[in-house]
Amino acid sequence: LELLTLGIGSASVHLERFPSAQLLSIDTELVLIDCGEGTQYRLLEYKAKLRRLKHIFISHLHGDHYQGLVGLLSSINMAKRTEKLQIFGPKGLKELIQLHFFYADTRLGFELAVHVIDTETELQIFENSNFSVIAFPLRHRVPCYGYRFEEKAKQLKILIDSLPLDFPTEGYKALREGKDYLDKTTAIVYSHTEYTLKENSTGSFAHVSDTIYDPSIVQFISGVDLLYHEATFTDEHESRAAVTFHTTARQAGQIAQKAGVKKLLLGHFSSRYKTLEAFLIEAQSVFPETQLAEQGKTVII
Amino acid sequence: LELLTLGIGSASVHLERFPSAQLLSIDTELVLIDCGEGTQYRLLEYKAKLRRLKHIFISHLHGDHYQGLVGLLSSINMAKRTEKLQIFGPKGLKELIQLHFFYADTRLGFELAVHVIDTETELQIFENSNFSVIAFPLRHRVPCYGYRFEEKAKQLKILIDSLPLDFPTEGYKALREGKDYLDKTTAIVYSHTEYTLKENSTGSFAHVSDTIYDPSIVQFISGVDLLYHEATFTDEHESRAAVTFHTTARQAGQIAQKAGVKKLLLGHFSSRYKTLEAFLIEAQSVFPETQLAEQGKTVII
Repeated sequence: LELLTLGIGSASVHLERFPSAQLLSIDTELVLIDCGEGTQYRLLEYKAKLRRLKHIFISHLHGDHYQGLVGLLSSINMAKRTEKLQIFGPKGLKELIQLHFFYADTRLGFELAVHVIDTETELQIFENSNFSVIAFPLRHRVPCYGYRFEEKAKQLKILIDSLPLDFPTEGYKALREGKDYLDKTTAIVYSHTEYTLKENSTGSFAHVSDTIYDPSIVQFISGVDLLYHEATFTDEHESRAAVTFHTTARQAGQIAQKAGVKKLLLGHFSSRYKTLEAFLIEAQSVFPETQLAEQGKTVII
Repeated sequence: LELLTLGIGSASVHLERFPSAQLLSIDTELVLIDCGEGTQYRLLEYKAKLRRLKHIFISHLHGDHYQGLVGLLSSINMAKRTEKLQIFGPKGLKELIQLHFFYADTRLGFELAVHVIDTETELQIFENSNFSVIAFPLRHRVPCYGYRFEEKAKQLKILIDSLPLDFPTEGYKALREGKDYLDKTTAIVYSHTEYTLKENSTGSFAHVSDTIYDPSIVQFISGVDLLYHEATFTDEHESRAAVTFHTTARQAGQIAQKAGVKKLLLGHFSSRYKTLEAFLIEAQSVFPETQLAEQGKTVII
């Protein structure tokens, strides 16, 4: 798993901080999480392989989190995409896309599925052979969802030379899936640790975009390898954070600490801050394994 | 009149060419024409005084001409604007804006009026003391309008010391409006050229965005001081221009020549062209007073 940050800004416009967007690589698949205005320019700048983009997850329908989506869809359509694309987001997203396509008279050359998320607790919304995605509610001014991505263990590679020539098919299957196999005829147990290569490590990532400080989300993000959490403000504007349903850097650190995650990545910085050091200092005072998201930088998960 | 170009690109994404947007200054008022994705970032970069922005004209509902609008409206609302803003554009624009505001739960702190343009010939759609605007239909793949802006003559300044002490009110009014006045009592004719300062010059500008080569628009743009005309392609891709309902640089030059405009400005260049010299050479071969739009550059009209 790798996470490329495309934008670290918030709704308040800043010339050098683009609005929210993160690109997650899972094996050969790309997953875009949020798509603020101008995201397609960042994807071009960072030379993202858009044919590999299979899934887009939108946290909520504030402009700085999705106003780049229609432009991106139009551009990948002009680029003659044929691969299916799936979008997940709150109620309204499909209607917004459809209305634009209607007036722009857009005909898609690829299959586009828009899935509505509507849940009050964690809910698995997607699964394929590479990864699964859990959505969970965030407390913001409009319906808003966090996402947890769980990479799946790949099938294990069998050390075939060590196995009998007549080793049964069901044995291979069990070992590949990381299970031990008992050969009933011979009563021999074939341990998957002995007869397969060491298991690939699997990563997990949680994306928490735009929420008031809310410890109730800890249950949904517990123990992930990387937590991205918004930090729109610093201590100085803690009351402003609460009023606007946003989080401070310190509060994000507290969430990371309570959830026992491995690493915390902060973003969604208000343009009122000329520099970002204070965000890092505040969060690290609670949770040392914090870093600030940087545009164009990749974090290995 | 001054025209600042914010974007010279077309729907095909290019890292250094932003999508369509032009900012027209008329006296103290700013008028935005088209608002492609990222326009608010250009306005910030070029330090536009957004409080002076009173009117936005959208040519049509392809993404590269309006997908920056909702972001811009949200940002000027966050900046606590109170001044009224008027938007003009094709059917659908109001519905698109309204649907976004509904899902984003946006409350505006200023009055926003969205006017639908729907006409098959030229139609005056706006007038105030500074300027008037005529809309006219363009032939593109979706409903699309050109706009002609006519600056109004300011009221003339009267040379009051030269006039009799008891000069009548209706005489002042006539002279200010640039008319001669006959004093019926004395049978004296007061010529406005003699009793007022030399008239302010007035400018005119026509904006022709996204159209197939269409000489029928000549009647609507005849004699303007500056014509902005799209030139998505060069001769090399003339058939592609026709299929996609766009214009070549040479064809734009032909329109300018037929319409007897003073100056031609080209924009909306396809990203397939690495350099733009060919556009200038082709158009100038037909209409020498051509220049290419440049981002961040102002043309005095």
